[in-house]
Amino acid sequence: MSRWEPDARGRLEQAALELYIERGFEQTTVAEIAKRAGLTERTFFRHFADKREVLFWGAGALQEFLVGSLASAPDSAAPIDAVAAALEAAGALLQERRESAWQRQAVIAANAELQERELIKLASLASAMADVLRRRGVADPAAGLAAEAGIAVFRIAFERWISETSQRDLPQFIRESLDELKAVTAGRSSPAADPRP
Amino acid sequence: MSRWEPDARGRLEQAALELYIERGFEQTTVAEIAKRAGLTERTFFRHFADKREVLFWGAGALQEFLVGSLASAPDSAAPIDAVAAALEAAGALLQERRESAWQRQAVIAANAELQERELIKLASLASAMADVLRRRGVADPAAGLAAEAGIAVFRIAFERWISETSQRDLPQFIRESLDELKAVTAGRSSPAADPRP
Repeated sequence: MSRWEPDARGRLEQAALELYIERGFEQTTVAEIAKRAGLTERTFFRHFADKREVLFWGAGALQEFLVGSLASAPDSAAPIDAVAAALEAAGALLQERRESAWQRQAVIAANAELQERELIKLASLASAMADVLRRRGVADPAAGLAAEAGIAVFRIAFERWISETSQRDLPQFIRESLDELKAVTAGRSSPAADPRP
Repeated sequence: MSRWEPDARGRLEQAALELYIERGFEQTTVAEIAKRAGLTERTFFRHFADKREVLFWGAGALQEFLVGSLASAPDSAAPIDAVAAALEAAGALLQERRESAWQRQAVIAANAELQERELIKLASLASAMADVLRRRGVADPAAGLAAEAGIAVFRIAFERWISETSQRDLPQFIRESLDELKAVTAGRSSPAADPRP
């Protein structure tokens, strides 16, 4: 086995996701992941600090991408629309990794500790986006609210995208969820509009 | 020392909050809390499972209160307004405990593990409120978005209430933050309205 392994990271990630789904996250060892990927444990630890990092290594890149997109939005964009545009752009990247995004979500949904980590990741994304909005001259509490509302839209859109079998893509779900949030906060979605039997 | 201690829970909570602030959460022992409260460790454990529960025992009651308030909102109320009214009612209860709410927040802000627990509590509150909205006939994704947006409003209002020295009360901050969210999602808070130098 040569020291340089083509796409070792991708192979390790895929092997890990398969094993986390088959056996559970807790029950899977790094040795098993490396074996399934046809690599050594040493190679695993060149790419990931531990088996949890396989699920979260993308968080930093996602945050950088969102911060960069938001910072370069036109000055004329309303904060919520600038946030939504950044999330849609990130959604387009995730769309290309739908299968592994689905697997990752299934693993996280089955483990309380991983769900906590995911909540922290989302809170951190909201906080980073609020900071960018403040630098763009948006006052508080609008900056915090636009960022938090954006993350709420993203979470709900992501859940629908993951759980639906439709052909709609993630950016489309994000746009729809933003429109729905606008309707909800405008009070246009009262139960009276959808009468119960 | 008699077996029945008047307001033992309140005395233990107050002693714990003081010690967590003075020495840090990690460094404080149950023995020290009991001593400061003039009670025994045995009494502590009759009221709290561990020293973390002193900070989170109210979460269950808060959730029950929010769920009950939301379930009894008038049928005609728009989901976001029903959610906000429930949060305002909860805010009025917290207002009466401002000093201990402030202390609790300072302890949580200083400890990453406690911050995680707080995020989980808020996610759980959002999830419980979304369930009530669904039972009231609100469809998805509106139910989830109204609940998540409500929790975002509550978080931001709570932070402002805790950090400001003004005399405004928490329900007032919640109303203001909701109005601000409505303005933000309506696109009425663009950076252009607040020009940078």
